Amino acid sequence: MLWKERISREDKMQSKSPNPEKSKAHEAKPSVADQKIETMGTGIVRDIKSGNPPKFTTITRTRSNVIFDKAKGYLKLGDSTEERTFTNVSQSKRFMQTIAIASKCHRFVKENLHTTIRGLYYQLKFSLGEDIDENIFSEQSESNPLIEDLEVSLGLKREELNLNANRKGVLAGNMKIIDTFGNEKIEIDCSKQGRSGWAIPSDVDNDIEFVNVKAKYVLVVEKDALWQRLNEDLFWKKENCILITPQGQAARGTRRLIRKLSDQGLPVYVFTDSDAWGWYIYWTIKTGSINLAYIGSEVATPEARFLGVTMSDLDKYDFLNKLTINASEVDLKRAQEMLDYEWIGKYKEWRVELERMIKSKKKLEQDALQGPRLTFVDDYIRDKINGKEYLP
Amino acid sequence: MLWKERISREDKMQSKSPNPEKSKAHEAKPSVADQKIETMGTGIVRDIKSGNPPKFTTITRTRSNVIFDKAKGYLKLGDSTEERTFTNVSQSKRFMQTIAIASKCHRFVKENLHTTIRGLYYQLKFSLGEDIDENIFSEQSESNPLIEDLEVSLGLKREELNLNANRKGVLAGNMKIIDTFGNEKIEIDCSKQGRSGWAIPSDVDNDIEFVNVKAKYVLVVEKDALWQRLNEDLFWKKENCILITPQGQAARGTRRLIRKLSDQGLPVYVFTDSDAWGWYIYWTIKTGSINLAYIGSEVATPEARFLGVTMSDLDKYDFLNKLTINASEVDLKRAQEMLDYEWIGKYKEWRVELERMIKSKKKLEQDALQGPRLTFVDDYIRDKINGKEYLP
Repeated sequence: MLWKERISREDKMQSKSPNPEKSKAHEAKPSVADQKIETMGTGIVRDIKSGNPPKFTTITRTRSNVIFDKAKGYLKLGDSTEERTFTNVSQSKRFMQTIAIASKCHRFVKENLHTTIRGLYYQLKFSLGEDIDENIFSEQSESNPLIEDLEVSLGLKREELNLNANRKGVLAGNMKIIDTFGNEKIEIDCSKQGRSGWAIPSDVDNDIEFVNVKAKYVLVVEKDALWQRLNEDLFWKKENCILITPQGQAARGTRRLIRKLSDQGLPVYVFTDSDAWGWYIYWTIKTGSINLAYIGSEVATPEARFLGVTMSDLDKYDFLNKLTINASEVDLKRAQEMLDYEWIGKYKEWRVELERMIKSKKKLEQDALQGPRLTFVDDYIRDKINGKEYLP
Repeated sequence: MLWKERISREDKMQSKSPNPEKSKAHEAKPSVADQKIETMGTGIVRDIKSGNPPKFTTITRTRSNVIFDKAKGYLKLGDSTEERTFTNVSQSKRFMQTIAIASKCHRFVKENLHTTIRGLYYQLKFSLGEDIDENIFSEQSESNPLIEDLEVSLGLKREELNLNANRKGVLAGNMKIIDTFGNEKIEIDCSKQGRSGWAIPSDVDNDIEFVNVKAKYVLVVEKDALWQRLNEDLFWKKENCILITPQGQAARGTRRLIRKLSDQGLPVYVFTDSDAWGWYIYWTIKTGSINLAYIGSEVATPEARFLGVTMSDLDKYDFLNKLTINASEVDLKRAQEMLDYEWIGKYKEWRVELERMIKSKKKLEQDALQGPRLTFVDDYIRDKINGKEYLP
């Protein structure tokens, strides 16, 4: 068979040719990812050599296989698996594509160099190997789901395949980062980042450590503007907390970091607008999301609590009543959908919140807490935490 | 007159009541902004006391008063001015609103606390003063243009009125930041920020210094993904440059920082996609924008050069021909518009670029340079700069 010979030939070439990108600055090192991709490749080569159709198994990521784990409190994949076989005509192209992706990632890992799924796509377009001319990818939408197939099949996150995801999010507080970068161990003190804060990267697991985490809790603030307000007040220093903003919806790296800080025993409080978008940000941090259900256990933080702003703040803080905004159709529709989610609607506190918005058609922004004075928001958060006035 | 008595009464109250937000951590200090707002206020009070209608002057910010300064190479406001008089019925509400904004900003500056234009809006909604019940703002769209009126009228940027703008952008390189923050001078070494980089703040002028800038040039890379790629290769260290990504369109703070680094004598090279969006990012950095024409001299860097990617790269790097993408209608329309801008169309090199896209209906992303190998982009940039292959 042609593909049999070709793999065998490539096999030999790979072992001979030195890696052109390997340099002292990027010393190769054996990693779990390296080993797992090699094991997968070895299995496929063995199948080929013994005349069996090469195959691999992945977990189904369709919506029907996404389940909410009640005991654990997050969205994850169910048990339904799929086998991809090269000799199945309807699967052979995708099989080839997946192996091509695995091969590229294997090289990235060996080289200890990172790129993105866009960078990977361009490598796949450029060439699949020294003697393969075929152009088997025409759109990035073809490679993206196959990367997830690989992640699931290998039990690795894409960050471990040296594929960076979009990053977003900033942190300040009493903790240090040891970032192994460019063969140096760089220590970053998150209490010495001034107005800027430490920018949370895509990968918070590999070659990076979080040490001296001296804080009582983690406060996640939806908007960067309010993070800056609190940072200026040195809120994290006065309250001894880790102050994070995901800058809107949390990116993978930020979700993963919140999960890791929660694993260190810190309570996590989330502070957003009282509207569809703010609630979505909270519930994504807490229970994960359908898209990332395949790594649910790594990015969801069911221990998170919702600090505000809430519709019930309107009773406690009278001035807020003149600072509400009209809820949009999207807000109202989303509120109703959330009521219907079993894992949200089961909480009385959330039913009260959601029903109050639907009835009043009003919403409230966290920025409104700056109305009476700029530092009012500091007192608000302190009172909420001290009085344990947060929602599940 | 009622408003006369009221201002006089407030005048007395202000001088008596201690500032509730003033604390050791935020020691008040006299600033240029403080003095300028006070001079404006004193002038208005003097007018009132002497029975003259209070007024102030601002420069017209309509499109007809935005001009391209050929000698200097950026967009700025022309000479047309507008007088706002309190006793002119059509202007009295906006006059009152502007004074209310000035009063709030005066307090922010005195308190040495920052907020955003959203936070300011909520303060205006909450109350205009201890004895004023009127609600003179119903939408933030009313306060936003008046903030610009004030900036222009006072000759100050909003950052100096303690109003932070959205921030975006990251930097790595051989330079240090001295950020005076929370009464401490914090030193941040931009060569020790690991994978994250230093997050560029909204205000890069006040209480912040850039020292030990040891670099040969500034490289501005459109996409964060490619910035991360180059940062991982320690490109800024090997080439001794300052590596910045605006993370898409550059925010005010990033544009201002590029201007400041250029003022230190560093050449600025901008590296974007070869498409409408990439070009827009470049020309905004270089010539400023219509919206920010009122601070054109502070945010535009006419000295900037365009490094790539270019349509002419397709001739030099043959492999790029199989990595082009179809240009969209927006790309083609924008390319034609740019040809018609006198300050772009005058350059032969740009006409060649733009006409080539229009003719071929193809565009090219900077990510495509990762096709042959991940570090190819490093060589590409090096070659371009060494060969002076950049566009005006």
